[in-house]
Amino acid sequence: MSMVDISGKDVVYREAVAEGVIRLKPETIKRILEGRVEKGDVFTVSRVAAIAAVKRTPDLLPLCHNIPITHVGVEFRVIGDDRILARVSVKTTARTGVEMEALVGVSVALLNIWDMVKKYEKDGSGQYLDTFIEYVRVVYKRKGGIE
Amino acid sequence: MSMVDISGKDVVYREAVAEGVIRLKPETIKRILEGRVEKGDVFTVSRVAAIAAVKRTPDLLPLCHNIPITHVGVEFRVIGDDRILARVSVKTTARTGVEMEALVGVSVALLNIWDMVKKYEKDGSGQYLDTFIEYVRVVYKRKGGIE
Amino acid sequence: MSMVDISGKDVVYREAVAEGVIRLKPETIKRILEGRVEKGDVFTVSRVAAIAAVKRTPDLLPLCHNIPITHVGVEFRVIGDDRILARVSVKTTARTGVEMEALVGVSVALLNIWDMVKKYEKDGSGQYLDTFIEYVRVVYKRKGGIE
Amino acid sequence: MSMVDISGKDVVYREAVAEGVIRLKPETIKRILEGRVEKGDVFTVSRVAAIAAVKRTPDLLPLCHNIPITHVGVEFRVIGDDRILARVSVKTTARTGVEMEALVGVSVALLNIWDMVKKYEKDGSGQYLDTFIEYVRVVYKRKGGIE
Amino acid sequence: MSMVDISGKDVVYREAVAEGVIRLKPETIKRILEGRVEKGDVFTVSRVAAIAAVKRTPDLLPLCHNIPITHVGVEFRVIGDDRILARVSVKTTARTGVEMEALVGVSVALLNIWDMVKKYEKDGSGQYLDTFIEYVRVVYKRKGGIE
Amino acid sequence: MSMVDISGKDVVYREAVAEGVIRLKPETIKRILEGRVEKGDVFTVSRVAAIAAVKRTPDLLPLCHNIPITHVGVEFRVIGDDRILARVSVKTTARTGVEMEALVGVSVALLNIWDMVKKYEKDGSGQYLDTFIEYVRVVYKRKGGIE
Repeated sequence: MSMVDISGKDVVYREAVAEGVIRLKPETIKRILEGRVEKGDVFTVSRVAAIAAVKRTPDLLPLCHNIPITHVGVEFRVIGDDRILARVSVKTTARTGVEMEALVGVSVALLNIWDMVKKYEKDGSGQYLDTFIEYVRVVYKRKGGIE
Repeated sequence: MSMVDISGKDVVYREAVAEGVIRLKPETIKRILEGRVEKGDVFTVSRVAAIAAVKRTPDLLPLCHNIPITHVGVEFRVIGDDRILARVSVKTTARTGVEMEALVGVSVALLNIWDMVKKYEKDGSGQYLDTFIEYVRVVYKRKGGIE
Repeated sequence: MSMVDISGKDVVYREAVAEGVIRLKPETIKRILEGRVEKGDVFTVSRVAAIAAVKRTPDLLPLCHNIPITHVGVEFRVIGDDRILARVSVKTTARTGVEMEALVGVSVALLNIWDMVKKYEKDGSGQYLDTFIEYVRVVYKRKGGIE
Repeated sequence: MSMVDISGKDVVYREAVAEGVIRLKPETIKRILEGRVEKGDVFTVSRVAAIAAVKRTPDLLPLCHNIPITHVGVEFRVIGDDRILARVSVKTTARTGVEMEALVGVSVALLNIWDMVKKYEKDGSGQYLDTFIEYVRVVYKRKGGIE
Repeated sequence: MSMVDISGKDVVYREAVAEGVIRLKPETIKRILEGRVEKGDVFTVSRVAAIAAVKRTPDLLPLCHNIPITHVGVEFRVIGDDRILARVSVKTTARTGVEMEALVGVSVALLNIWDMVKKYEKDGSGQYLDTFIEYVRVVYKRKGGIE
Repeated sequence: MSMVDISGKDVVYREAVAEGVIRLKPETIKRILEGRVEKGDVFTVSRVAAIAAVKRTPDLLPLCHNIPITHVGVEFRVIGDDRILARVSVKTTARTGVEMEALVGVSVALLNIWDMVKKYEKDGSGQYLDTFIEYVRVVYKRKGGIE
C-alpha cells in the first residue's frame, strides 16, 4: 500500500463537481427556509463547513495528496418539499484531480445540515426515521483547457 | 447562531450506530475481495480512515462538541455483487450524543473506498458513471443503561 | 518550560467572556449590514470561524490544556459607523479556565471579518490604511457556582 | 458565499508584514526580560506558536486558500515599561497574498504571551484589569519584484 | 528564531528515504505475522499512520515548510525473530528537502506498531522491558535528476 | 480492526515517562549549548514541539483515544560530547494510559532537534552520516495512587 506517485504528472488546471441529497421532514425544510432553526443559518454554516472540509481532504483520506485548492463553490437547492441538494465545485492547478475533494465537501455539507436540524428530525425516543442522505455522486471532472 | 449549551446535561453513557452503502462495478468488488487493488487493502485502510475521522468530528462540523470517544467499531459487508455496506458504532460517556460522529465515520469510510478504487471505476474520459454513495443513515442511538 | 500540572485541580464549572473591536471604513460597515459583501454573510461566517477556533485553542497555544468545551456563544454589535465589536463566551466543566479560548475566539472572529472585506478596505496600492483591530480583552472569568 | 476563485491569478512572489501590541503590568515585563516566568521563555515559545499558526491560517479562516509559505519571521520589542510589540513577516510565491497569514501570526504571538503570564496579570479575583491587546494591523503588503 | 527563508530556492525534484527498527518479543512478531493481533493488521494500519503523518510534518515540526508531497512509500521487513524495520520514502517537487518528512513517517510507523501490540509487550505490572525503538536514521536524500 | 472499547474502564490518575537519545556531531552539541544555532534555541523549540505533539497523539496514532492531558513535562540532558537525551512525562485522569503520548513526545522532541541542526550535520553531498536517533523507550508507567 502506498500513496500513488504523481511526481511525473503534469501541473495542469483541473476541476470537479459533486452533488448529493439529504431527505428531511417537510416541516424542517420550512423551518430552514423561514430562518427558524435555533442553531442558525443552515445554508451559510454548511457552506463554511464544506469549504473547510475540502481543504482538509488529505487529512481525512489517507492516500490523498495535499494540493493547493484555487476555488471552492457550494450551492444548495430545495427539491420538492422534503429534500435538499448540495453541489460543490473544486478547482486546482496541480498534479492530480479534485473529485475526492468535491465529494468530501458534499458529504460534510449534508452532514452539517443534519447536525443543525437534529432537534426537529428526531422522534420521541431520539431516533431518526425520516432523515437520511439519499445519494452522493460525482457530476463531472475535467482536466486541462482554459482556466 | 451558537454551539448548543450542554453545561447542564448529564455525563452518561451514550452510543450510536450509522451505516451507508456505496455502489461499485462488480469487477471492482471482485478486485477488493481478491486483494487485487493496487492502492492496498481497501477495508483496513477505510477502517483506519473512519476511526480517525470520528475523532475529528468537532473539527469538521463547526457546532459539534469535542468529547472523549471511548470506542469506535467499523464493519464492512458486500451486498449482492455491486454494493458495499459500511457500519460504524461509536461510544462515549459524555454530555451529548454521538450520532454525528457515527455518520462522519460512515461517510469517510465510503469515500475512502471510492478513493482507493478510482482507477477501476472511471470510464475512458475520467467520469464516474457507475459509482455513487447510495445512502447514509443512523441505525439507532441510545443513552444511559449498562455500559 | 512545561505545561502547568492541573492534575490536582477540581473539575468545576468555569466560564469566560472576551471581546474586541475592529475598525473598518463606514462604507464597508454599510455593505456588511446591507448584505452586499461578495464573499457572503460576514457575521455568520465569522461566528463559525470563532467557534471552530475556540475548539482548536490547545492546537494554537502550545501550553494550553485540551478540555471539553460545553458552550461557545458569539455576538457582534456595530458601534458608531466604523466599528464592529465581537464578544465570545465560553463554558466548560474542567480543571482549568477558558479565558484563552474566549480570546482566541474573539481574535479569529475579528480576523475573519477582515478577511471577508479585504477587497473594500485596501487602497489602490493594496495597503490597509483604515483597517485595524483596536483592542482585544477579557470581560470577565468565573469559576464554580450554578451552571 | 464561496472561496474566491484564484485559478487565473499569477504565481508571483508576495510578502506581508503585520504587527500588534499587548499591554502588560510593568512587573510582568520585567519578569519576561529577566527570564523569571515560570512557564518558560516567553519570546521563544510565542515565536514558535506564531510560526505554527501562520501555517494553519487556512484552517482558521474558512475562506483563505492553502498556499506554500516560504518564510515566516517573528520579532518582539518592548515599548516603554508596559508594552510588547510583535511583528510578523510572511513570504510566499503563490496566487494570493499573505496579509491574513501575517495577521494570524501576530494575534497568536500576542495571545501566547498572555497565556504564559496569566498568573502575574490576574488580580485576586481572577480578573484581567491591566492586560489587553492594544492593536493589530498590517504594516504593508507587497507583490512581485525581486524575491 | 525563524523559519528558514526558501523564497529564492529552486523548485526541483527531491526525495529522501529514512528507516528505523523496533524490537519486540519474538511471540509478538509471530502474532503479527500470523495475523493474530486483536487490534488488527499491524502493517497496513502502520502504513496508513505513516503516510498521514508525513503529510502533517509541518504541523509537528514548527520550523518545517508546508510543501506538496507527490509520493510516500512505506515498507516493513522482519529482521531475525525480534525486530521490525520500517522504511519510508518521500518525494516532492519543491523548494526544500523531505528528509524530516521521511523521518516523521518512520517514527510514526514504529510508534503505531508499538501502540497495536502494547497488550502483548507489557509485563504483569504494565511495564515495557523488551520493547524499544532501536534507531531511526536517514538512508539518503537526493535533489534534482530525473523524476 | 477497531479502537479498543474503554467504556467500562475506570477514570483514574495515570502517568507515563518515556525517553530517547539522538546522536549528533560534538561540534553541533557545542553550538547548541553556546546558543549558536541559527534556527534558534533548540531546547525551547523542541519542548514546545513535544508538548504540542503529545496533545495531538490521537491524530497521529489512529487507534489512540482522545483524552484530557493534565500535564506534560520535557527535559533534555547532554550525554558525553555527542548525545542528547530527551525525557517526556505525561499525566492524565482518564480511562486509558498515556505511554503512547509520552513516546510521541520524545520522538517529536528528538526529530525537532534534528530539524534545527540539519545544516551542521549534513556532509558535503547532503547526507547524514553521524546523525541518528539511538533509541526511544518507556521508562515507566503508573496507574492510580496519589495525584
